[in-house]
Amino acid sequence: MKQVFIKDIAEHAGQEVCLKGWVRNIRHSGKLVFIILRDGSSEIQAIAFKPDMSEETFERAKRLTLESSVVITGVAKPHPKNEAQYELSVSNVEVFQLADEYPIGKKEHGPDFLLSNRHLWIRSSKQWASDLIRHTVYFAICEYLNNNNFFRFDSPILTPNACEGTTTLFELEYFDEGQAYLSQSGQLYLETGIMSLGRVYDFGPVFRAERSKTRKHLTEFWMMDAEAAWVEHDENMQIQEELIRYVIRKVLDTCAKELQILERDIDALKATDAPFKRMTHHDVIEYLRAKGSEITHGSDLGAQDEVMLTEGSPVPVFVERWPKEIKAFYMKRDPQNPDLVLGNDLIAPEGFGEIIGGSQREDDYDLLLARMQAESIPIDDYRWFLDLRKYGSVPHSGFGIGLERLVAWMSGTHHIRETIPFPRMIYRIYP
Amino acid sequence: MKQVFIKDIAEHAGQEVCLKGWVRNIRHSGKLVFIILRDGSSEIQAIAFKPDMSEETFERAKRLTLESSVVITGVAKPHPKNEAQYELSVSNVEVFQLADEYPIGKKEHGPDFLLSNRHLWIRSSKQWASDLIRHTVYFAICEYLNNNNFFRFDSPILTPNACEGTTTLFELEYFDEGQAYLSQSGQLYLETGIMSLGRVYDFGPVFRAERSKTRKHLTEFWMMDAEAAWVEHDENMQIQEELIRYVIRKVLDTCAKELQILERDIDALKATDAPFKRMTHHDVIEYLRAKGSEITHGSDLGAQDEVMLTEGSPVPVFVERWPKEIKAFYMKRDPQNPDLVLGNDLIAPEGFGEIIGGSQREDDYDLLLARMQAESIPIDDYRWFLDLRKYGSVPHSGFGIGLERLVAWMSGTHHIRETIPFPRMIYRIYP
Repeated sequence: MKQVFIKDIAEHAGQEVCLKGWVRNIRHSGKLVFIILRDGSSEIQAIAFKPDMSEETFERAKRLTLESSVVITGVAKPHPKNEAQYELSVSNVEVFQLADEYPIGKKEHGPDFLLSNRHLWIRSSKQWASDLIRHTVYFAICEYLNNNNFFRFDSPILTPNACEGTTTLFELEYFDEGQAYLSQSGQLYLETGIMSLGRVYDFGPVFRAERSKTRKHLTEFWMMDAEAAWVEHDENMQIQEELIRYVIRKVLDTCAKELQILERDIDALKATDAPFKRMTHHDVIEYLRAKGSEITHGSDLGAQDEVMLTEGSPVPVFVERWPKEIKAFYMKRDPQNPDLVLGNDLIAPEGFGEIIGGSQREDDYDLLLARMQAESIPIDDYRWFLDLRKYGSVPHSGFGIGLERLVAWMSGTHHIRETIPFPRMIYRIYP
Repeated sequence: MKQVFIKDIAEHAGQEVCLKGWVRNIRHSGKLVFIILRDGSSEIQAIAFKPDMSEETFERAKRLTLESSVVITGVAKPHPKNEAQYELSVSNVEVFQLADEYPIGKKEHGPDFLLSNRHLWIRSSKQWASDLIRHTVYFAICEYLNNNNFFRFDSPILTPNACEGTTTLFELEYFDEGQAYLSQSGQLYLETGIMSLGRVYDFGPVFRAERSKTRKHLTEFWMMDAEAAWVEHDENMQIQEELIRYVIRKVLDTCAKELQILERDIDALKATDAPFKRMTHHDVIEYLRAKGSEITHGSDLGAQDEVMLTEGSPVPVFVERWPKEIKAFYMKRDPQNPDLVLGNDLIAPEGFGEIIGGSQREDDYDLLLARMQAESIPIDDYRWFLDLRKYGSVPHSGFGIGLERLVAWMSGTHHIRETIPFPRMIYRIYP
């Protein structure tokens, strides 16, 4: 009989169906065995009642172990107390494999044990829910961009140059061509793409060989970089805000069950669907100092500053117009104040920190060259990047979103390592 | 005035609109200047007629150079001889940047020159069309999978072990954890994912440090790996066939203009939308030998064999049930013949070669362990993979599609290096 996915069970009410999955939980009581069956799409309670089947089948059901793989046949019925929920009245149970004693039990496990057993831990309800939210966020981002004239333009991972020093770069030998580096961002390549396609984005893994052990750092993570011709600083922030709002609404609309499993504060998430705040870096420093921080003008924001900044704010906060010394060479100078650049970060509420970095880009050849020289960037290696300012330069802007940080915020997950199937950290590359 | 994208011009017929883009081509004749303007979304002919504007504006239009970036205002009008096509009757031209003499001209350039100027070459019509087809193929694959109960499950790029020897692996130092390798396939990780999500796929870059210089090899390319619980060999091929058919139809439906620019043989592509052929490896060898090949049973197919096999076939050909010696350790033995495995390749017609490799996977712990030992795979490093056969093993299958090869076939592009924005090959890592 053809497999029915549990999520589609309501379409088969009253019919005999065949479900295929794993035993999430099992208990028995007299003539009844209650099996929580999961199949990846959802879960259902299957009830085996001894008089409905052979002695042998009932015994088979009773002896099932956690995580055993089974094919269960039965009739789908609405739950007597909750019509929206379905149960399966079992007629047959076939065991594909009776699982060994499952190492992840009901007792608490430390993170090291769980991470070493990540290949099994991903089956738990919370990890399952987190993966589905990741899937949803990924495609919500793509949908928004595809609907707004952006095209995918995959930038390379293997890159020949170390733009901003090699300290946080993974390095490897590339045949006879010397050293190559794993990309930290596709942005510079995307700037070539806008000259062909107008608006482009990439969405793939990037790498940072950072010796950080915070709950917000991975050495391998997924980044979406977007870049758009003819878009300037204000419109750039507007696109970012619309995109994040699109993601929030999509998650709220389609992931109610997953959010519930993760015990996400739904009201807090709903409250973010309102106009985001915009503050200049200067005003942010003033604000933080007034709240008692000792941060100075000209400083980057640390994790604690980000928390203090968004405390009490239901919506994310844009921090814009940064001192040029603490931002990248390619950001465009603020025409109103040449000490600043037209960059922005977006800081999520509830302590989830920075989720976007963006800016308008320097489009003038001479200004860009001067800035690169001042920062000792090897000009010859970046001739191709400078070429973009010689052959039809345009005003343009872009931004990057860290997928895991956005998923952590949407799902209310404290530690970013749970938002990616196989996290890579300084002391963790297995499994 | 707000930018209108050229692809949407028909919605603004008779109105004054503002277009922003680059000069693809320009010629003038008396009181007329004809500008081919491209903006990434499409192209349009803009006609500047001297009496319609100031002397200064007309002179500005006349002096435009190839690839200059411009903002052109004018009225959108249907072409007098072709109502489906639009022209712009120009009222104003603003130049953002007058481009230097553009290095890619109308004369023929060699591949080395074009690849060294890839950051500019991507602007040419054919490269633009190829990128759009890549975008379309990427999302057609995702759509099909998302509609068929598959979820994204990103497998890691940084992996601790060298499963099948290190000769074609890129290697790097991973902090104090020793050597790490860039992934060649996420398949083994996807097998963990099906136990949580039922059906999963990844879609990202993979890496092969191969010293190959053929037109079908890249060192960095994009791969979609899919894996499904409870799916066996025949259904696995059925899913592959449906997926490829979905992609073909999507490309035919939405990329007519791009296919025309690339001079793709549309009839050949349409002809592939029919049931695919299925042949066993054994029968393929017999068939090739009957056609004069000297290939022997037990041999893999070379590029020439693939061409000969599909000659005269309008549709792709599945080659299934391979000798186990020439296929990977994780493939399930054919229950009808233990010398064979339930693997399949899919060979595209018109000489485009292998585009899919797939198989049912060995789901029995003892048989898998024996096979791994026989192939000297370091068992301890793959305990996690073996665990999947201890805790609820299920029959399962999967397959991998090389994005660039599929795009090359769809677009009729001879050399795979033109199907990815920045190709990486043995002698090529710049720009």
